[in-house]
Amino acid sequence: MDKIMRVNMNTGDIHQEPVPASWERLGGRALIPRILLDEVPPTCDPLGPMNKLIFAPGMLVGQMVSSCDRISVGGKSPLTGGVKEANAGGSTGLHIVWLGYKVILIEGRVAPGSMLQVLVITESGAYLEPARGLVGLGTHDAATRLQERYGSRVSASLIGPGGEMRMLGAGIMHLDKEGSPGRISARGGLGAVMGSKGLKAIVFDAGKARRPQVVDPELHGAAKKRFLKAIQEHPQTGQVFPHYGTAAMVDMCNSFGGIPTRNFSTGRFEEAEKINADAFHDLMTERGGDSSNTHACMSGCTIQCSNVYADVDGRRIVSPVEYETIGLVGSNLGINSPDMIAHLNYQMNDLGLDSIEMGAALGVAAEAGIMDWGDGERALELMEEVRQGTPLGRVIGNGAATGGKVFGVERVPSVKGQAISAYDPRAIKGTGVTYATSPQGADHTCGLTIRANVDHTSPEGQVEASRIAQISMAGYDSLGACIMGGYAFAIDPTMVPDLVNGQHGWDVGPDYLSELGRETIKLEREFNSRAGFTPADDRLPEWMTREKLPPVDTTFDVPESDLDGVFDW
Amino acid sequence: MDKIMRVNMNTGDIHQEPVPASWERLGGRALIPRILLDEVPPTCDPLGPMNKLIFAPGMLVGQMVSSCDRISVGGKSPLTGGVKEANAGGSTGLHIVWLGYKVILIEGRVAPGSMLQVLVITESGAYLEPARGLVGLGTHDAATRLQERYGSRVSASLIGPGGEMRMLGAGIMHLDKEGSPGRISARGGLGAVMGSKGLKAIVFDAGKARRPQVVDPELHGAAKKRFLKAIQEHPQTGQVFPHYGTAAMVDMCNSFGGIPTRNFSTGRFEEAEKINADAFHDLMTERGGDSSNTHACMSGCTIQCSNVYADVDGRRIVSPVEYETIGLVGSNLGINSPDMIAHLNYQMNDLGLDSIEMGAALGVAAEAGIMDWGDGERALELMEEVRQGTPLGRVIGNGAATGGKVFGVERVPSVKGQAISAYDPRAIKGTGVTYATSPQGADHTCGLTIRANVDHTSPEGQVEASRIAQISMAGYDSLGACIMGGYAFAIDPTMVPDLVNGQHGWDVGPDYLSELGRETIKLEREFNSRAGFTPADDRLPEWMTREKLPPVDTTFDVPESDLDGVFDW
Repeated sequence: MDKIMRVNMNTGDIHQEPVPASWERLGGRALIPRILLDEVPPTCDPLGPMNKLIFAPGMLVGQMVSSCDRISVGGKSPLTGGVKEANAGGSTGLHIVWLGYKVILIEGRVAPGSMLQVLVITESGAYLEPARGLVGLGTHDAATRLQERYGSRVSASLIGPGGEMRMLGAGIMHLDKEGSPGRISARGGLGAVMGSKGLKAIVFDAGKARRPQVVDPELHGAAKKRFLKAIQEHPQTGQVFPHYGTAAMVDMCNSFGGIPTRNFSTGRFEEAEKINADAFHDLMTERGGDSSNTHACMSGCTIQCSNVYADVDGRRIVSPVEYETIGLVGSNLGINSPDMIAHLNYQMNDLGLDSIEMGAALGVAAEAGIMDWGDGERALELMEEVRQGTPLGRVIGNGAATGGKVFGVERVPSVKGQAISAYDPRAIKGTGVTYATSPQGADHTCGLTIRANVDHTSPEGQVEASRIAQISMAGYDSLGACIMGGYAFAIDPTMVPDLVNGQHGWDVGPDYLSELGRETIKLEREFNSRAGFTPADDRLPEWMTREKLPPVDTTFDVPESDLDGVFDW
Repeated sequence: MDKIMRVNMNTGDIHQEPVPASWERLGGRALIPRILLDEVPPTCDPLGPMNKLIFAPGMLVGQMVSSCDRISVGGKSPLTGGVKEANAGGSTGLHIVWLGYKVILIEGRVAPGSMLQVLVITESGAYLEPARGLVGLGTHDAATRLQERYGSRVSASLIGPGGEMRMLGAGIMHLDKEGSPGRISARGGLGAVMGSKGLKAIVFDAGKARRPQVVDPELHGAAKKRFLKAIQEHPQTGQVFPHYGTAAMVDMCNSFGGIPTRNFSTGRFEEAEKINADAFHDLMTERGGDSSNTHACMSGCTIQCSNVYADVDGRRIVSPVEYETIGLVGSNLGINSPDMIAHLNYQMNDLGLDSIEMGAALGVAAEAGIMDWGDGERALELMEEVRQGTPLGRVIGNGAATGGKVFGVERVPSVKGQAISAYDPRAIKGTGVTYATSPQGADHTCGLTIRANVDHTSPEGQVEASRIAQISMAGYDSLGACIMGGYAFAIDPTMVPDLVNGQHGWDVGPDYLSELGRETIKLEREFNSRAGFTPADDRLPEWMTREKLPPVDTTFDVPESDLDGVFDW
């Protein structure tokens, strides 16, 4: 982690530099707004040559501490117009750290009409070459070819047709430890940024390089051990998520009346039991073959909340199926079939698109009469339109907000142009505060409050719940720690500082996680402010403040003045 | 002008109120931001129930002073998200004043699924009734039926299919003095606002009501006489525009290298002489029949820069054909045929769409390969897609910015989401300053600088030129005076105060026009600020600061710090 790599797509120049002093103690999500403030004009065109695409592993990455090897990808978002960080599991983070980089910066863009490129990073350096045979390929075929061409042990980050067409719903796929493109830096259109630079894939060949030495092995090792024990002993990370994965949220959200259903028109799906954790669990158990209820998205993770979903013949359809996809692509479209959800999820992964944004966009399209509720075959056809780049497909590939404009639909579930995830903010209002105020746009991973000790349907106490969650998540995202790790970290506040100090030889104190989170959000808000954001952007869609959500029968009624105080800490 | 009318579309309630004191000395464009600040939440959904659609005649309207009877329509713009005023000729302004109203406010909206309504305003009151037989009709057929139903002497303001589908490129058409829907409050999507309220048309039946008495007939009459003489003696308003109309700008802009050509990729159209003023003039002269090179868009106008364009058999195609349409629908699409421009113009009028926004959207579509340059038949097909409400048609109907997002096109000519008019800001940089900084979004009528005494290709002096033009135009727009009237008003600064004082019995001084303009812009910027606008919004598209415009070979290089000082007066 002692150097940075700059790749100029315009000139083809690639060089290494030492890490600037002000970047040294930042990583992952926290480093992204720092770099943007230092190097990217806040009002620039996100798909123009002045934006930069940033790959920044979290600060704990590289040591295979369970759940702590996530990669943060960032830049100015073409979907929101503001700061964007989208983190993911897979092996990208590990490989970048093992290769000795703190951050990789993709700058400029290829000349108009040039062929897409592949960036190959190895122990001995890096080079660009044309993406021959890869242009237009889905991420699954492209990943296979990359491994054929560059070796079966390489990792990669890549875009699909969505990113190539610069669709605002496009993310960046990362290979999981089995080499499948199943982990995605999904949100905010970073795949379109990568496409705009002219880059199809980055291949990471760490060769024999492995984890760098930590500065204080004893301190680090002891903290790692305590953390592992805490994970295993916590009921959620020790039992629920390893068995049921994030699909466990289906019943919880449905019971709260907060699962998005038929474009957020109700919060309870009458067929939820057909797509809940039990349904998926039983199918995967019964079908066997490639199926697996338990799967680690990152090497060394002990929670293993991921899964592999197979068809009736036991052949893998997609890995993983996650709650957000079940909520947005299932209940939100009135689709009650796990198989159909899995097939749609596969198509979205193959296109390199955010399944939250796509589910929301399809919901808006259904509201406009483009598809019927529950008609999964039609949804698959629409994904094929996306692949073909037809006008209709391009509308959907650009996400819910664009779809709402084009189709003349008022009930669009998005904030700052980014789709709301699978917790209706009228039923879980603290998460609504997060959606409204996060510098990232609507995103549950920026501060989910569903386990906060509040009445979720009351406007009271939600700002505090969101503030605490937003600060913690900004901290975890900067460490490279998964949201699941938070259950264990919360038990013993010495674990984070000990891991950080043990790894880096620093001297951070007991409030480090909170300090890091606050600093991150402060930097993000500074960038957004310079990009033109104001409190007027920190609002949920107006219709959610007017339309009551059945069956809890409430609107989003947290006062605007409260929203404006979220970051007054 | 002693009362206001409020129409609540939700309840059907219509009532009259006295004019609030703070509104009394405002009118037209100036009154709109005052009402918005007083009554409309700045962050509201522009197509939701909290926006209001405002019809406010200018302060000189009603007296048939040449060129001074314009109607301002306004509200929060769904295209820009900010304040919007779009003024037009026709007879709407006259009728509203003759009926005794200072402003008509359309509030709320009909219940979902309700039939569109017609608002009928007569001497004895007003009522709403279902728009039977009018839903989905183009503005020409709809206007004919309205006159059949309500009498041949009524006037009307109405929307076409574009507004009914809430397309962001939709305007509001007004009948001209012959009863044809040829005058449009074009910009900013106000037709979509009218559609969102559930209102197809407003019918004005002034009956026997005529112009109200002025307070000081002598003062008013003398000023009117001086003004008329000044118009007739000025070379532009006395000779050029009456003969050639605004088409006279084709040669001027082409020679400046600033006529938009093939989506603003060059500023000189090699076939400009096929679509210039001479070409149109000769065709109209030669064809005769319904053709007319001279036509008054408002009763009593002596400039008569409008025209009627007929086909080879002398049958009217459309009235009028204006320079902005020739630039955006002609050269900007590589179309060299006056007949094709006229046919496209007719379709846009019939759909009730802004021809500037549509020309720009088609240019973006052509850049994306949806049509070939110069292929007018394809452009007509695309207008038919708009009429059918197909996904592609809806993309185009929503304007250039949405089109750019959907099609993945970088070269989008818009500011604050609104398309740039037919003066490329790289060749006429003062107008570029106007586009960038006007609270209205890109709009030449907010401050055209083409006749300013500056080097139009230099960044020097443009801010001053734009500031002067913006202030003047905000004043004229508030008076209800046409941009053409400005030529004459500029000759003798006593004419505006004398007309105002003579009509209203006020005591405004010699700086009134400038004071009114500044006050208007100040109110508009206050609304935009509350709606979330910042200096980051006062920018031209980034590509125009990077891509040189042939043949003048300059980028838009007025410094951002200069742009931020436009309103420091």
